[in-house]
Amino acid sequence: MSNQQNQKQQPAAAADGITPRGTDYGQWYLDIVKRADLADHSSVRGCMVIKPHGYAIWEKLQRELDDRFKATGHVNAYFPLFIPLSLLAKEEEHAAGFAKECAVVTHYRLKSIDGKVTVDPESKLEEPLVVRPTSETIIWAQYKNWIQSYRDLPLLINQWANVVRWEMRTRLFLRTAEFLWQEGHTAHATEAEAREEVSRMLDVYADVAENVMGVPVVRGHKTEGERFAGAIDTQCIEGMMQDGKALQMGTSHYLGQNFAKSADVKFLNKEGQLEYVHATSWGVSTRLIGALIMTHSDDNGLILPPKLAPIQVVIVPIYKTPEEQAATGAEAQAVAKELRARGLAVKVDDREGMQPGAKYYEWERKGVPVRIEVGPRDLEKGSLCVVRRFVLEKEGESEPDLRKRKKQFLPRAEAIAGMPALMDVLQKELLERARAMREKRTRVIDTLEDFEAFFKGEGGFAWVHWAGTHEDEDVMAKRYETSIRCLPFAEQIPEAARGAGACILTGKPSAQRVLMAKSY
Amino acid sequence: MSNQQNQKQQPAAAADGITPRGTDYGQWYLDIVKRADLADHSSVRGCMVIKPHGYAIWEKLQRELDDRFKATGHVNAYFPLFIPLSLLAKEEEHAAGFAKECAVVTHYRLKSIDGKVTVDPESKLEEPLVVRPTSETIIWAQYKNWIQSYRDLPLLINQWANVVRWEMRTRLFLRTAEFLWQEGHTAHATEAEAREEVSRMLDVYADVAENVMGVPVVRGHKTEGERFAGAIDTQCIEGMMQDGKALQMGTSHYLGQNFAKSADVKFLNKEGQLEYVHATSWGVSTRLIGALIMTHSDDNGLILPPKLAPIQVVIVPIYKTPEEQAATGAEAQAVAKELRARGLAVKVDDREGMQPGAKYYEWERKGVPVRIEVGPRDLEKGSLCVVRRFVLEKEGESEPDLRKRKKQFLPRAEAIAGMPALMDVLQKELLERARAMREKRTRVIDTLEDFEAFFKGEGGFAWVHWAGTHEDEDVMAKRYETSIRCLPFAEQIPEAARGAGACILTGKPSAQRVLMAKSY
Repeated sequence: MSNQQNQKQQPAAAADGITPRGTDYGQWYLDIVKRADLADHSSVRGCMVIKPHGYAIWEKLQRELDDRFKATGHVNAYFPLFIPLSLLAKEEEHAAGFAKECAVVTHYRLKSIDGKVTVDPESKLEEPLVVRPTSETIIWAQYKNWIQSYRDLPLLINQWANVVRWEMRTRLFLRTAEFLWQEGHTAHATEAEAREEVSRMLDVYADVAENVMGVPVVRGHKTEGERFAGAIDTQCIEGMMQDGKALQMGTSHYLGQNFAKSADVKFLNKEGQLEYVHATSWGVSTRLIGALIMTHSDDNGLILPPKLAPIQVVIVPIYKTPEEQAATGAEAQAVAKELRARGLAVKVDDREGMQPGAKYYEWERKGVPVRIEVGPRDLEKGSLCVVRRFVLEKEGESEPDLRKRKKQFLPRAEAIAGMPALMDVLQKELLERARAMREKRTRVIDTLEDFEAFFKGEGGFAWVHWAGTHEDEDVMAKRYETSIRCLPFAEQIPEAARGAGACILTGKPSAQRVLMAKSY
Repeated sequence: MSNQQNQKQQPAAAADGITPRGTDYGQWYLDIVKRADLADHSSVRGCMVIKPHGYAIWEKLQRELDDRFKATGHVNAYFPLFIPLSLLAKEEEHAAGFAKECAVVTHYRLKSIDGKVTVDPESKLEEPLVVRPTSETIIWAQYKNWIQSYRDLPLLINQWANVVRWEMRTRLFLRTAEFLWQEGHTAHATEAEAREEVSRMLDVYADVAENVMGVPVVRGHKTEGERFAGAIDTQCIEGMMQDGKALQMGTSHYLGQNFAKSADVKFLNKEGQLEYVHATSWGVSTRLIGALIMTHSDDNGLILPPKLAPIQVVIVPIYKTPEEQAATGAEAQAVAKELRARGLAVKVDDREGMQPGAKYYEWERKGVPVRIEVGPRDLEKGSLCVVRRFVLEKEGESEPDLRKRKKQFLPRAEAIAGMPALMDVLQKELLERARAMREKRTRVIDTLEDFEAFFKGEGGFAWVHWAGTHEDEDVMAKRYETSIRCLPFAEQIPEAARGAGACILTGKPSAQRVLMAKSY
């Protein structure tokens, strides 16, 4: 009752309603989010619904992060959603930074007036409560009770939570009014220890970005204007998306003694003196799923690195007769069992009344790394048809050659035994491909002319010398829509971009280049 | 530099500042929460901080629940924190049920006026947003887009989230303005299927309560007055706490077509007709940690079932000299390694400058199931001193005999090899002990006189015949502070309480008894 596996496939884009990247990149992104069933807009302005497939990816990402947090000595806890207005206002710079995007609870009861449900005006709170945009203030208010002496330090706590920032222009995963994240908040006896923690956690983020998500990142410091409100140093990892724009994927802050001072958190040091505690905070969010999509996916849909794929292998039985259905169905289950025994997440798609082609498209769209087709001829030959979601394209390769590399008929035992290794290959190749893309779109630029031409063209990452002021940064932003993504750690600068020079805008001397790009 | 292991122990209660249960049960509960480092009050009225030890228990509980949700075909997703007022108001009964405890967001910006940070009056929202007290309305608004035909059913989704109910009288874990929970929301083609789901999930809850938490529960239906706002049937599990009061530990609701109708969610059935979908919802929350504490703990602190203990075995090296410190420290690590290889969560407490006794008290207070003491004499003899956090008390047993059973010197290999089995024993005995406590405080009661005497005395669970009205229930509540905890499933009624009879208040005929108790 079903098609053969060698049927001619339709171009997936048309069939699946995904706008090609080349046509409209922004629409392509939204199409992927929708068609891969990752998220939906909700009936609340700016708030998204994370659908099961999107949430399953988030759960895998959470596990990878959480395991690393715990391995570096952190524990999880949970702090209140609400922050009293006066508490938020205590650290001025911090409050000013978030003031324009705070959802505020002012009442605590509803009332039915003339049959219409409305806010009960008599239930006004004495003090308004801000829905946390981040939790430094409420957490440090607590730390005051938890920290007395150097024996209580370091205090290494992480929280998984939802936060709200009232963004006016939102985009699914990348910028939403409510999002999910983790926020680490640590307290240390010395500045040196705190700064070490900041680096350690940035390394954890970079490790997850590159080795789990397959997204290469540049590490560095934010400029003064881009720092977290209340921080002394903000470090970040920046990835490049397929449109050449940068995406800030995670930040780690050294907060100095600012929050300890405003919350009055002192500790008795080993010498018996009272000192203010040194603080860090660090976070990544569901925004990372946006980064994942925009780094790897193609016009046929999502592409997932095996480490984050909720389904790593999908098996589709192919048949025409009830006998074939029974035989290929049984074989699909048998293969699934053997693969699961090797630690893989496998789904058998034996839905009836659906063409294999439609199944292929659906799982391609959803980013499953490998598909196995099991047809009657495979049973006869003892083979399996293994189809990779992607292969690294070779320059000048013909479409049939590429398709041949994508789809291979392998002896059954070899296909099964080789599957974990194939996952490793796909994981590695995604990173490799993303790195190649980034290198292709990275330039060392020395003149404003070249800079302008680059960003009027396809754009990407520009390594430029900089010695301007905050106002000069605004000039660049106005003229070219670019910003300093980071002041990179020395070893992050490619060899060709190292050394001193002159600021691209002001001509003033500059010790090392910075990373400039358009960004999300 | 340290004490020997056979030192005389002080009464822990005095040393650890835990009020004995017999003196003040309510204070005892709060003391355990504080002294076992489970949670703290925050600077926001009614909102708690879940501290790392409390959160680690919650994480274990989450894993146990989540695994079972997934095993029964459910997937996780995430829906917005905010519900537009008009959306909440759509299902009238539901809105009325939650109206009095809704936190409402009315503004989205702060402003500094004369140097004082305040709510910006110009940022008033067009429509107020209710912080979710539960998510039926926002989820069903989404399901409208996700459900078209019978092929889309059943839709089996769960969400892990925070919710807010503006309670006036709060108590850590048991009743807080914000709490963490999971809420399942499923959609089905038929009433029968939906009702099956309601039972299935109640069974999952009962399984976790009894076999993971060690808390025996009675399963049944809530009375009309106690049903979830908007439900047709609410089923619950009820546990008995050590003060004889009942605690509702989880609920599972059949919502009929109420939410489908108010959100207009229809599906095309197999016959090609449009029908409203049938709904269920079910949830448990961080309240379960309150149940855990109040079922098992004693005057020395928390007692945890091994399946939920973040640390299952703590090993304390005992020494006087540096040589002994090195030797017992190494042995502690070696034993830890062997136990970890057997799948146990082990901590070596080798903190310096702290007496072993102080360590024992701390880990007892925090509920660690087993402590191993490693002293120089143990090294010589090749033995380990294994101390259980509790033993089932035998009637008339002397204090020394009891202590002997609690603390055993075992050959090293035997102690290690037997540890997983000891965990099983402790897990089983906790349930057994809780069951015995419940049975001891359960009565079959037929007259108001006996009823009154029972609840004026130590109280507990009363199996009584009931055929009263909702007003009659209020009479009982006023007179005795009792309520109908549930209309139990037939097989949940103990044999001695089965059969028909006459209502304890009205004398009207009653087909089967109900469960009455005071409650949290």
